[in-house]
Amino acid sequence: MSFVADLEKHLGVSLITDPDITSTYSKDQAPFAPSSPAAAVLLARSTEEISKALAFCSERKIPVVPRGAGSGLSGGANADSQSLVISLEKMNQIIEIDPANQLAKVQAGVINLDLDTAVKEYGMAYLPDPASRDWSTLGGNVATNAGGMCCVKYGVTSHHVRALTVVLSTGEIIEIGKSTKKFVTTLDLLHLFIGSEGTLGIVTEITVNIVPRPRTPATLIATFSNITQAASASTELLKYRPSMLEIIDQTTLKAVEQWHPLGFEVAGSILLLQLDENFELGDSALATCQAHGMVDGMFSTETSDAADLIRVRKLAYPALERLGATLLDDVALPVTKIAEFVEKVEDLADKYKLMIGIFGHAGDGNMHPTIVHDHGDLEGEKRAKLAFSEIVAIAQNLGGTASGEHGIGSIKRDMVGDETSASVLNLQREIKKLFDPSGILNPGKKLP
Amino acid sequence: MSFVADLEKHLGVSLITDPDITSTYSKDQAPFAPSSPAAAVLLARSTEEISKALAFCSERKIPVVPRGAGSGLSGGANADSQSLVISLEKMNQIIEIDPANQLAKVQAGVINLDLDTAVKEYGMAYLPDPASRDWSTLGGNVATNAGGMCCVKYGVTSHHVRALTVVLSTGEIIEIGKSTKKFVTTLDLLHLFIGSEGTLGIVTEITVNIVPRPRTPATLIATFSNITQAASASTELLKYRPSMLEIIDQTTLKAVEQWHPLGFEVAGSILLLQLDENFELGDSALATCQAHGMVDGMFSTETSDAADLIRVRKLAYPALERLGATLLDDVALPVTKIAEFVEKVEDLADKYKLMIGIFGHAGDGNMHPTIVHDHGDLEGEKRAKLAFSEIVAIAQNLGGTASGEHGIGSIKRDMVGDETSASVLNLQREIKKLFDPSGILNPGKKLP
Repeated sequence: MSFVADLEKHLGVSLITDPDITSTYSKDQAPFAPSSPAAAVLLARSTEEISKALAFCSERKIPVVPRGAGSGLSGGANADSQSLVISLEKMNQIIEIDPANQLAKVQAGVINLDLDTAVKEYGMAYLPDPASRDWSTLGGNVATNAGGMCCVKYGVTSHHVRALTVVLSTGEIIEIGKSTKKFVTTLDLLHLFIGSEGTLGIVTEITVNIVPRPRTPATLIATFSNITQAASASTELLKYRPSMLEIIDQTTLKAVEQWHPLGFEVAGSILLLQLDENFELGDSALATCQAHGMVDGMFSTETSDAADLIRVRKLAYPALERLGATLLDDVALPVTKIAEFVEKVEDLADKYKLMIGIFGHAGDGNMHPTIVHDHGDLEGEKRAKLAFSEIVAIAQNLGGTASGEHGIGSIKRDMVGDETSASVLNLQREIKKLFDPSGILNPGKKLP
Repeated sequence: MSFVADLEKHLGVSLITDPDITSTYSKDQAPFAPSSPAAAVLLARSTEEISKALAFCSERKIPVVPRGAGSGLSGGANADSQSLVISLEKMNQIIEIDPANQLAKVQAGVINLDLDTAVKEYGMAYLPDPASRDWSTLGGNVATNAGGMCCVKYGVTSHHVRALTVVLSTGEIIEIGKSTKKFVTTLDLLHLFIGSEGTLGIVTEITVNIVPRPRTPATLIATFSNITQAASASTELLKYRPSMLEIIDQTTLKAVEQWHPLGFEVAGSILLLQLDENFELGDSALATCQAHGMVDGMFSTETSDAADLIRVRKLAYPALERLGATLLDDVALPVTKIAEFVEKVEDLADKYKLMIGIFGHAGDGNMHPTIVHDHGDLEGEKRAKLAFSEIVAIAQNLGGTASGEHGIGSIKRDMVGDETSASVLNLQREIKKLFDPSGILNPGKKLP
């Protein structure tokens, strides 16, 4: 591409243009989102370098795709042959850990778990725990407003961010939010960027909350003969303020059992709950499950049991992946609608002759139906894509939404309008124009 | 005013124009913020009525001042003679309480405490607890992003709001956010409105989180010979995850003692802490206070003691108010800077020959220095105003901010620029233009 040599000169660094390498930097983990190798990849080293690159790209109208670890599931980091990918992976320094003020400041390329491990030394924790936390970056977590298992108690990424350094498409560097715990001095520009999926600016530094490390949790596991019972139990279990509350359907359980026998009867559904305080409530929680038709269950405060008990949840997605090509969906709905949702998705599986395993964050109503079809079966793939969209429509019709934590990326842009008024869609576009007048930042993502 | 008859005709309702009444609807609780009786007051009854009123006012460029209970402390609800005040106080219906989905939906004029009382019947709580909660409205709480005592554990208003109905200045009605617990389908427009102090739109309906009611708290009180010790203890006490952590200085203690003897020695400073879980940590918390030089202290799990023990905090502001005219300031700073802040404010009190009592939310670094001068002493009033601004500058120089929870209103607009870049100031103005192109919404407030 014509811009590469000029941009290298402008920045005084080399860009990656080898297609073997650019191709791996040009897509995330979404299976059917379009992508092609970017014209070039910049492994950014500083906020200033990103500023210079964006000013250059704005002037020349070169599309820019910002990228963390590429762990996204909605095509949000996918590029095309015209674009410059800016990877933040080398900006992986923890700038400051301040336990007394309960904050940490990091570059956006720091891996979520690396921060948690670093603050652990001080008896502190960084709480948001997306399933990708071993390799996803905090910049990516901010871009998608990532959730996780503990969010049922502690909230999603947006609840844990105090301040951001952002480079706008013009190259302008802005500081938004404040490192203090409370801040109402300006309009809340901070949250506008959280979950904006790289469409408004590139986040380069992040100040987050760290908190006293919660107790190692106690775990409850309960089996039910059907998902309606499990779902209704889960709604009531929220009163124990669980730090995890997950649900798994029979299809998924069978897939896990086939791979790693669980040591208990495959039930209609399983609930997993953790408490990181008030362990004395475990027995009441079991009683609640019993009142909703629990078949079998146990509660253990032994740390050594926890890993065993939640193994079935950890294996849910990989067990389904073993069985074929997967499409992992992500919708959020009222918790009281989970059972109805699951029934409708089961009907959909019948209609399209597909396996759909359903698991998710029951406490947040954030469900991850996972559609499985045979590798290489193009007809199956077509049906899977149709089912993927219909799952979103089912959630929307139950008062839910297209995405709870994975984001819209490129794969759900067409579905946003089904639940969003023309006014709000228009306001989104106007805000985008305000922050990115040349329209270079992650075009074709998030905003329909 | 010329517009009144036309607007009455347009809406089919009467407006209040009696100056005896309009004057009380034209100011909040900020003592020296300019105001004059509005041209008219609309006691709004519905979202649609507000929509019609705003469309009319947009066309005629009539300034509109939205208003909850008028409990604000920064002049945010102050009007002038050209303006229409829209009061939301009659829109006080609780629309829905849904304990299973842990949400409530209310009209914006519902009093904070009324909601909490209503959800208590279901074993639930609405947590954010501004000192004004007995009479401030949820719409006002949203407009200022109100804090409170329990926010040290549970976060401020913005952490508890899921969705809003907003009328834009054009009269357009938009729904932002979602009633689900998680939502990343659109840009986060929701938080842009929280804390926007009526400058971007009028919030008419609010969907909030309600949660299982926490346990009645246990209370710790500890006296220290100076505020440096108390402040350093408070920073460490955060590790017990208190649901309240307040600090009071000697000046304030003396004012309370003079009025209602406390039954203990007036110390250099007092800390109050509450736990609503893990009562077994009370003794460790006392030990932490001892390690920081505690003179005297106690921890009680008796509910009946709590009211007595925290009485000194409840009386702090009224005790200072008894002694003269007061200016209540509100700044937020890093918790590790509290002691230094207090020392500098004490120097300021000497410099200006003023009494300044300091109390506040130690756990959040959100301090409320309260300047007292004699009623009618115009020279004292001048000095008090100077001190008010200098207190903000002290906080800003310590890495803090002009407002933690009261908002900017009209009284702190000049101070925003001292800690905010020209770029961010400009982005704020551009966002304002986007949502309120005619500039009629609460002009002269929040944005410099």
